[in-house]
Formats: sequence, structure tokens, C-alpha cells
Amino acid sequence: MEYISDFTIHRLSKYLRTLSYMEENGIKTVSSLMLGQHNGVTAAQVRKDLSCFGAFGRRGLGYNVSDLKKNVNRIMGLNRTWKVAICGVGNIGRALLDYDQFRTQGFQIMIAFDNDPAKIGKTIHGVAIRSEVNLERDVRDENIDIAVIAVPVSAAQLIVDRLIVGGVKGILNFAPINIQVPKNIFIRNENMAIEIEALSFALTNPNLVHNS
Amino acid sequence: MEYISDFTIHRLSKYLRTLSYMEENGIKTVSSLMLGQHNGVTAAQVRKDLSCFGAFGRRGLGYNVSDLKKNVNRIMGLNRTWKVAICGVGNIGRALLDYDQFRTQGFQIMIAFDNDPAKIGKTIHGVAIRSEVNLERDVRDENIDIAVIAVPVSAAQLIVDRLIVGGVKGILNFAPINIQVPKNIFIRNENMAIEIEALSFALTNPNLVHNS
Repeated sequence: MEYISDFTIHRLSKYLRTLSYMEENGIKTVSSLMLGQHNGVTAAQVRKDLSCFGAFGRRGLGYNVSDLKKNVNRIMGLNRTWKVAICGVGNIGRALLDYDQFRTQGFQIMIAFDNDPAKIGKTIHGVAIRSEVNLERDVRDENIDIAVIAVPVSAAQLIVDRLIVGGVKGILNFAPINIQVPKNIFIRNENMAIEIEALSFALTNPNLVHNS
Repeated sequence: MEYISDFTIHRLSKYLRTLSYMEENGIKTVSSLMLGQHNGVTAAQVRKDLSCFGAFGRRGLGYNVSDLKKNVNRIMGLNRTWKVAICGVGNIGRALLDYDQFRTQGFQIMIAFDNDPAKIGKTIHGVAIRSEVNLERDVRDENIDIAVIAVPVSAAQLIVDRLIVGGVKGILNFAPINIQVPKNIFIRNENMAIEIEALSFALTNPNLVHNS
């Protein structure tokens, strides 16, 4: 079985953004060349990425923007609602609660957890902040699919272990620590530094970077 | 001229993390296969990415971990200090001010701007929060290289225009809006949703994702 790399998955996300933008601007068809140019990759790369999931578009005619958008959305699992819990209502947790795009993309934040008595019981954008005391039960009762880890490094592994007991299958980790999870659990680590490093690269090698 | 894609740049960031981890754990040499396996790519991809920048390692012997780390650091421009300004001290701005790894990687936050009188004049982790009134002059005086946009969407373009007047060359944008910049300015857009979309993909296609 050939696995799909993280890089392919990230490219699919980017194609999706380009397709949404095109659809909003009334563009009906797109070639693999154009889709590639918007994302800094070749037409061959676009075709290769999409071919993993079936045959889209017609040779010489390109892709229908709306159809392809619908297909990539489905491939990405973004044609449904995911129930999300936020663990830790510090700066990052709060930023995510404020982040409208999560909601519009089908990531529905159901609960937030924090251990600060000053925060417990408050509501942010309709999401109640609860104590972590009954975390396992709470995530099970709410059928949480995905949990976001925005707690301090020292608390992160224990919270993840408890979330898994509660039935959570996906972890989005903002804590700068390597968290251990069983084989059947998916974890993605958010790295706040990766884009500023890309800027450092661009400023250091201005002639090697395509600036559109 | 062949441009280096964002995906290659992101892979270099990831290789760097693997190399740092290996160095910290006393590992002296690494093969392209091993470096690839840690990052979900093939040995050929690793060799191709590195070959853009010169010849490292010796056939059959692999790479010296410390040497390669030093080289990738230099290629990425991470062997120097970048002076950074944070625009907007809301949740994201504050999270970045709290984020130790920025500092250790050479991104030195010199100033933060906000237009909230309650924040102006305060100091977070030694960084003074200033009014935006003299932003152009302030970023020029501090020789700011990179500015982070963590202001509301409605303010983002104007702030970027003013930063560029003040001599800023790189913009890290957290506002979910497409900002226009002149050709000689580099901009990277942080997308808070890309990793949760990757989780959505993994949970939807568990058999297509390598879970290590």
C-alpha cells in the first residue's frame, strides 16, 4: 500500500483554497498548470496528487472548478462535521475559539477545558469552559472526534492519555513536545515556527524563491 | 532559474528538526533513507532537496549529523538574528510573545504594536508594547527585518503598507486575508487550519496515512 505523504495532504488543502477562491470569483474551469502555478508546483505534480484518488477532469479540457472542489472536500473529509474539544484556554486556545474559519470548515468546537477556576464556567463564542476533572466522561458524552492540545508542555501527555480514554481519535498538538499515542490515534503537531523559517529562507535566498 | 518550492523549504525545516533531535541524542551520522523515514519522504527526495544547495555527505557513508545541521541552518538563514516586530497583541500576538522557540531560533522580537490604550506601555517578556502612531519610524529605528501581522482583517493591509514604508522586508501574516505587497517584499500566510485539515484527511482515510 502506498501511503499519502503529509506534503501531498498539505497540497490538497492548498488546492482546495485555490478552488474556493476561483469558485467565488466565477471561474468555471482550471488546468493542472494553473492550479499548480497558484501553489508553486508543476502541472505534473497536481495531476499526480489528484490521481491518487481517481480520475478528475478531462485531457485537454482541464477540471470543472466546482466538481473538483467538491471531490477534494470529500477526499479531505471536509464534507462533514468534526466535533472538537480545546484543551487549555490560554492564548492559543482562545485564538482558536475566536477563529471563525474552523466553524465554517466543519470543525465544531463543542467544549473547552481549563484548570483555572477563574475561567471555568465562562463561555467564549458559545463554548463553555469546563474543569478537566471529568474530561474522559465529557469528551465521551460529546462524541469528540478531535482534541486540540494547547496546555503547557508539562500537562500535555497526561491530557492526551485521558482524551484517548474518552474516545478521541485525532490530536492537534500545539505543545512543543513529542507526544506518544497508540497506533490507532492520529496526531499532528502544529509548528508555529515553520512559516517564519520559510521567510528566513526567502530573505536569505531571494533569487531562489518565486514571489507572486 | 529553478525556484525552490514552499514544500522543499518546509521539508528543510523538518530535516533541521530531525537533525537537532539526533544531535541532542548523540547520533553522529544519518542516511538519506533515515532522514526521509523520520519525515515521511523517500531517500531520493531527501537527496534531491539537499542537492539544490551543494554536495553534502558521502556516498555509502551518509551525512555527518552536526555538519548537515550546520549547513541546513545556514541555507535557511537561521545562523543569524532576525529582528521581529509583532503587530497586534491579541491572542495570537501574545502567544508569539510567549513562544520561547522563536528566540532560540534567532527570531528576536524587538517591539510589539497595539492600538489599545490599556496595552500600550506594558511589557511582555521584556518587549514593550507601543502605539501604532509612529510605526514607520519605530520599525526603521529598530531595523526590523520581519513583521508579524496579528491584527484584525480590517487593519491588516494598511499596517503592512506602513511596515514596508518603514523598511520591513518580510511579512508573516496571520490575518485570513490576501495581502498585497510589492515584488521585493516576501510574505507568508499562516494558516491555522492546515494541520486540522490533515487530521480530517487521516481520520477519513486511515489506511492511506502512515502513522508512526
